Amino acid sequence: MESRFSKDYLIDPDFDLKVPVRKVVLDEQDEFGSRVTVNLYDTTGEHQDGHDGLSSLRASWISERKDTQESTRLSIAGRLDGSTDTNVALKRLVAKDSCKPTQLSYARAGIVTKEMRFVALRESVDVSMVLEEVAAGRAIIPANINHPETEPMIIGSRFLVKVNANIGNSSVSADISAEVQKLRAAIGYGADTVMDLSTGRDIIATRNAILRNSPVPIGTVPVYEALLRAGGSPERLSWEIFRDTMIDQAEAGVDYMTIHAGLLLSYIPLTISRVTGIVSRGGSIMATWCLAHHRENFLYENFEELCEIAAQYDVSLSLGDGLRPGSIADANDDAQFSELRTLGELVQVARRHGVQVMVEGPGHVPMNLIRENIDLEIEVCDGAPFYTLGPLTTDIAPGYDHITSAIGAAMIAHGGAAMLCYVTPKEHLGLPSEHDVKAGMVAYKIAAHAADVAKGHKGAALWDLALSRARFDFRWEDQFNLSLDPKTARELHDESLPAPAAKKAHFCSMCGPKFCSMALSKKLKGETDNAVDVALRTKSEEFVDLGSSIYVDTPRSRTN
Amino acid sequence: MESRFSKDYLIDPDFDLKVPVRKVVLDEQDEFGSRVTVNLYDTTGEHQDGHDGLSSLRASWISERKDTQESTRLSIAGRLDGSTDTNVALKRLVAKDSCKPTQLSYARAGIVTKEMRFVALRESVDVSMVLEEVAAGRAIIPANINHPETEPMIIGSRFLVKVNANIGNSSVSADISAEVQKLRAAIGYGADTVMDLSTGRDIIATRNAILRNSPVPIGTVPVYEALLRAGGSPERLSWEIFRDTMIDQAEAGVDYMTIHAGLLLSYIPLTISRVTGIVSRGGSIMATWCLAHHRENFLYENFEELCEIAAQYDVSLSLGDGLRPGSIADANDDAQFSELRTLGELVQVARRHGVQVMVEGPGHVPMNLIRENIDLEIEVCDGAPFYTLGPLTTDIAPGYDHITSAIGAAMIAHGGAAMLCYVTPKEHLGLPSEHDVKAGMVAYKIAAHAADVAKGHKGAALWDLALSRARFDFRWEDQFNLSLDPKTARELHDESLPAPAAKKAHFCSMCGPKFCSMALSKKLKGETDNAVDVALRTKSEEFVDLGSSIYVDTPRSRTN
Repeated sequence: MESRFSKDYLIDPDFDLKVPVRKVVLDEQDEFGSRVTVNLYDTTGEHQDGHDGLSSLRASWISERKDTQESTRLSIAGRLDGSTDTNVALKRLVAKDSCKPTQLSYARAGIVTKEMRFVALRESVDVSMVLEEVAAGRAIIPANINHPETEPMIIGSRFLVKVNANIGNSSVSADISAEVQKLRAAIGYGADTVMDLSTGRDIIATRNAILRNSPVPIGTVPVYEALLRAGGSPERLSWEIFRDTMIDQAEAGVDYMTIHAGLLLSYIPLTISRVTGIVSRGGSIMATWCLAHHRENFLYENFEELCEIAAQYDVSLSLGDGLRPGSIADANDDAQFSELRTLGELVQVARRHGVQVMVEGPGHVPMNLIRENIDLEIEVCDGAPFYTLGPLTTDIAPGYDHITSAIGAAMIAHGGAAMLCYVTPKEHLGLPSEHDVKAGMVAYKIAAHAADVAKGHKGAALWDLALSRARFDFRWEDQFNLSLDPKTARELHDESLPAPAAKKAHFCSMCGPKFCSMALSKKLKGETDNAVDVALRTKSEEFVDLGSSIYVDTPRSRTN
Repeated sequence: MESRFSKDYLIDPDFDLKVPVRKVVLDEQDEFGSRVTVNLYDTTGEHQDGHDGLSSLRASWISERKDTQESTRLSIAGRLDGSTDTNVALKRLVAKDSCKPTQLSYARAGIVTKEMRFVALRESVDVSMVLEEVAAGRAIIPANINHPETEPMIIGSRFLVKVNANIGNSSVSADISAEVQKLRAAIGYGADTVMDLSTGRDIIATRNAILRNSPVPIGTVPVYEALLRAGGSPERLSWEIFRDTMIDQAEAGVDYMTIHAGLLLSYIPLTISRVTGIVSRGGSIMATWCLAHHRENFLYENFEELCEIAAQYDVSLSLGDGLRPGSIADANDDAQFSELRTLGELVQVARRHGVQVMVEGPGHVPMNLIRENIDLEIEVCDGAPFYTLGPLTTDIAPGYDHITSAIGAAMIAHGGAAMLCYVTPKEHLGLPSEHDVKAGMVAYKIAAHAADVAKGHKGAALWDLALSRARFDFRWEDQFNLSLDPKTARELHDESLPAPAAKKAHFCSMCGPKFCSMALSKKLKGETDNAVDVALRTKSEEFVDLGSSIYVDTPRSRTN
């Protein structure tokens, strides 16, 4: 029987739950003679044939709660950018009057939802911990009632570190099927959520195609679409345009939305002396609006109403850092931290409305200033999940910013950041291709896992252990199948074709750990009695008789 | 005039020194109307036509010191592996009787060598700091008197973090010109030193070809060649075989040598319960010898004589960590730290002999255990430079270990490690190709520079600053030319061809940083007097009149 990996499910029969895993069956037996298996977290969703969308895993969970109803609202989506609204046939849900169908509300009421049970099984933790963390706002389960296709996942510092992949078209390139393909590439490499940052034509149809094919939560930056609705001029934006856009996206099923509500008019001048000013696109749009009107950010001023909308659909809010540093010289400055403190204030508003909320973070930050970011966020945002873009630890390597930022991402996740937004090699240079999506995802899965291990997450290091055991035993197939990217590991190995080998037993176990120390220390003390010399000589002969190899069967062939 | 980069030199006319730099002339003028230039550290050496070797920059410096003489020793190199000793024509130097021509000896005597002046100019630091750090043993300048081709460089935690690239053939593939090509690729991407880890045929000729063509210090692991001389059987090794090998390599010009003298017989049983046992090749060889004879490591027992040899040529010692962890499960265990403490003892012996010495470190270490490694090394090795292999922060990503380890490398360098041994994507899978050499070098230059910036190294962040200014101004050519890898940055950019743009001036400077805060806070306090409203309306109109763009000339086009 061969070593192999395949999709499998963890079953909870009591609650009719099936949680997907990548099951690796090893070429190794346990003490009872059974094949050793390792279950790895899986984000790939059900098999997709490319056209039909996914089944609605959560539809019955949502309807059973009886706190939602069909929305009677007429969507204006589809009339604005000339694209077809593929969601028209879908029944849209909205909260019943005075109901708040959010995971936060349920958790506070002590109601354990199926979503909570699903993530508990997925993370191998007790469901009471999930309940507690969600209730406290230290974790969120992004799960819009209009995106029943999601396989629930949780974002919080006591859980596995998550990775988001950005996709989306721009005004110069728009191809819906290409974006769905990027979505599948991203989840194939382990993306836990995907943000659709489309700004071009067919923005609505693209997002709907992504939503209906996504088993992971989908995030957006609604101000991008609002800007299109305002004819492309930031100064023509208004709360009303934004609100309508947000409701349409909520009814389409967007699970979380980046809201740049913390960028206040008074913070904009703090960016004048910066090396790279305002680099967030959403931040620039809002700053332009603020300056054009010399009025306070309308997202800030209408944040209570915005939360009421989010609560009706269980849209999670991701408080955008419009003033994040765009170069290490600008890191941790007054502009950035002033906005962060305002985001902390908004976290409390959102929670008051029963809305799940996380906070976005930088950006470009040198290693020595990373800790301050996460510590301050935890303090001023009361433990709300921190969702960071890297940070990049140096500005000098365009073309390799997946690496400059994986360093910072691993460090900030180790410090407590709950989700990492990936950065691809194309950052600062162009829009990522599918190849770049892969490179970014792999770098970020590494960063997230390195942080999980460093945080001592239950189970994380078992993956490393299984792979290292396979490595030491020269079980190459197991090593490949346990790899983050089995295909690449196998290809690189096959380039140089080392001969297969086996190394099953261990050297030196006949002595035990104490023999050498004792014998040597006796010799060193000058107690060179005959017994010690004889014992050492005997051990020497035993070793030579066994083949003079420190590992039985084969010598090691490592470098250096 | 176009933005460009080229090789240039920093000149010290007083001492006739020419220090190479990569000079980038920007498409930007300073306040006096001159083009802004940025000088970057350069390791590429003089132009090489592939055959002739390099000129002997240091030959006169060495001879002027009058403490060396021609060696009369007959090398046995070339007689053992059938290869031709290409060094035969070279005059070999050795210390005159009772002289110690080492940079450490000079520094202790207060003698400022040309090597010290060269590195001071290269690092933009005062030469007194170089003298002090070398004298204290906290930095080394690997510079064998028989490798006059080296452009001196310094390894120490108060200087720029350095990167080593490993090259070398194996028994299955041996091609001298291919190894010289890998050397050039490595220094082309910024390798500060190169280790020749050849174990196959033509080991001597390969090393000599590398030495004669290398402007950077060359390191070796002499026990690899000693093992060949012993017919490939570790148990047939002896101190005498090792000593002869070491002297031959010293006379050929090897600048530093990895010596696995800290792996004591009594530490071997500590590895029994490990997940991955002993993974160092040199460590395995010495462990096998120790067990075959049940005697103490002959490198440990003869370490004083070994130091006497090193002192005669100014060979720096790199104390090998034969018991470094090969998986994160084995990190920071008794075996590893017992050996580290012994290395600390050997540091003192080496220094007593006037020998420059650094200490090698892991390996595989989870992020939360990295700090303990560097702190313990600094303590028990009395600040001797720490030279680490990564460490890899997780075991799960074969094919991407340049990334798993760049994270750990950046962190340990930030903590004080002075040199990083690169890891390529082929680690654990095969021997690196030239492509892998590039991938490993770029990842490690990023890690080293991120650490330099985090440590506040004078000048390091100026590189980031220059690049970020170019980025904010859309000076694409400058951005490419300032990149760590200009070619790749340009290629990735050209894949999506964004239109060139320019953004010279800054928004909002008419208000100044205080206006908005003051006006807004007055409004918030209810002091909505007419003057404030008028002032805000005026500012709004000014902004709109100027084009409603937060940056003059063009709106930003960044994502998110």
